[in-house]
Amino acid sequence: MSTAARPNPGLIFDTLNAYQRTEALRGAIELDVFTAIGEGARTAEAIGLRRGTSERGTRILCDCLTTMGFLEKTGGEYRLTPDSAAFLDRRSPTYLGTVARFIGTSAMTEGLRDVAERVRAGGYSTEGGTLTPGHPVWVEFARSMAPLARLSAGAVAELAWRDGAVTKVLDVACGHGLYGIAVAERGENVEVAGLDWAPVLEVAEENARASKAAGRYRTIAGSAFEVELGAGYDLALLTNFLQLHGPADCERLLRRIHAAMLPGGRVLTLGFIPDETRVHPPTQAMFALMMLGSTPEGDAHPYSAYESMFANAGFTRSEMVEIGPSRTIVSWR
Amino acid sequence: MSTAARPNPGLIFDTLNAYQRTEALRGAIELDVFTAIGEGARTAEAIGLRRGTSERGTRILCDCLTTMGFLEKTGGEYRLTPDSAAFLDRRSPTYLGTVARFIGTSAMTEGLRDVAERVRAGGYSTEGGTLTPGHPVWVEFARSMAPLARLSAGAVAELAWRDGAVTKVLDVACGHGLYGIAVAERGENVEVAGLDWAPVLEVAEENARASKAAGRYRTIAGSAFEVELGAGYDLALLTNFLQLHGPADCERLLRRIHAAMLPGGRVLTLGFIPDETRVHPPTQAMFALMMLGSTPEGDAHPYSAYESMFANAGFTRSEMVEIGPSRTIVSWR
Repeated sequence: MSTAARPNPGLIFDTLNAYQRTEALRGAIELDVFTAIGEGARTAEAIGLRRGTSERGTRILCDCLTTMGFLEKTGGEYRLTPDSAAFLDRRSPTYLGTVARFIGTSAMTEGLRDVAERVRAGGYSTEGGTLTPGHPVWVEFARSMAPLARLSAGAVAELAWRDGAVTKVLDVACGHGLYGIAVAERGENVEVAGLDWAPVLEVAEENARASKAAGRYRTIAGSAFEVELGAGYDLALLTNFLQLHGPADCERLLRRIHAAMLPGGRVLTLGFIPDETRVHPPTQAMFALMMLGSTPEGDAHPYSAYESMFANAGFTRSEMVEIGPSRTIVSWR
Repeated sequence: MSTAARPNPGLIFDTLNAYQRTEALRGAIELDVFTAIGEGARTAEAIGLRRGTSERGTRILCDCLTTMGFLEKTGGEYRLTPDSAAFLDRRSPTYLGTVARFIGTSAMTEGLRDVAERVRAGGYSTEGGTLTPGHPVWVEFARSMAPLARLSAGAVAELAWRDGAVTKVLDVACGHGLYGIAVAERGENVEVAGLDWAPVLEVAEENARASKAAGRYRTIAGSAFEVELGAGYDLALLTNFLQLHGPADCERLLRRIHAAMLPGGRVLTLGFIPDETRVHPPTQAMFALMMLGSTPEGDAHPYSAYESMFANAGFTRSEMVEIGPSRTIVSWR
């Protein structure tokens, strides 16, 4: 933030160079530096020998990773932080390195190469954008973001069951399908319908077959805005989806979901939900920029915006629940 | 940093998205959003009207700028922070928006688009790189980084005069020439020789003509490693230059400078100088990555490395001086 004393250009300089942090972490994941360190390579020389990289380049990269908070350095030796050991060592069951693929895919980044133009236009409406029917970026999403979803799927399932039994679930834009699957794994008779583009559903079906919900997973291929949704659902999941759209489209979709649900049914909305100020917490607030860069009307909607959308679509009430660092909205039909 | 408690993937996610901060600030500077706010446009609508941008895009951009620490937001109204008013409002005498041009120029960024390859190779040695004789990026540097140099040139000149009178200055890779000019402005008889590529020297000469040192500025066109340096200097300036090179090249240059200087003369070395750990302070430490991405052997050398280079080149002693947030090394011939 600003200093009370003498003006300081440090934040400007660091922000203009912030892209280097992204590139450094992407490079380190690509080179699998974290696994090498986890396996016992401690010095730049040892890591370089294991990865076929220069000692100088490895030292500079590992120093920067230390500065950025991903490693600890003592003398000339590097060690993984607990978070890096959990998420960036390929041998860890919670390895998240694949997340870099989706976040770095050109479909998600190209719109932000010209922020000024996005701000002029108010969004990204280029033909072939991420909301084009069947866009391949959603297969990449389903594959590479699955490990991140696994971290929170249990808590989401717990919330789904908090207010009573679940029997029939509609998982809208299900992607990897892991949220619906986690809900179904909590009960023996729960049936899930995963809705997404056909190539994405192959990923969800793979995950369902490998789960305790195998045999209770069916799919609905097509656009959530157009395809026949079915009926009789007591739970609907909207994970990382409403935020891709503006309020009018969200309401249109919510009316369709309302019509497909049983009275008393619930909708769980997961996504990046900032405070009403829209400037905090940072991760949630900054997500709006990604939506400006990759969708025509998507946004990091605050809770009040979702509450209005659900009310306008006929839902009786909504509530926001904090699950660890992320937020989920429960809405009752 | 890592959490003692439950592992948290937040830092990974935020770092993979850090490039968006760079793009957002670049976009805001290009659209001159800060000047619009400084002139009194307070809401997204008002800023949008003044700049021809959409209300939605302007609101998302300004929210993100607030999150990033460049604006303050109250209700729907934005205000400049003191730092943004000083450095990002085009009407300010210390406007730094031009800095985005050099930092964002492809010559500086392209090498970091593939960090893994830089780490393998140990540097950027591609033909046409920034160290190619006469590379146009240094004219861009001289033009766009001048406002940043003006902020510290006075303090550098003060340090140059701290230990006695100055009469003849060699400003190596002088760029905009502002450091040498500031030294010369402190004395009536000081003569400065600015050394750089010929097209860069046009910028330095422009700045000299507009200064109190007009008429006392001459130029030496060519490579600092090869051109005739002259003799009789009691001060040499090495600003943001040694860090572009490895220790061997630095020593070779320092021997040439040593030979051109009077006994008792001093060299001031300015640059990004991290602690001996090479991982702190962040701005200084991260600079090594830019050197990995744009030079074959450049680095954010720590003080001990410079001390050795100067000693090996025949200088009697060195000392590090903190000037505000940056560091300067004084070395005695």
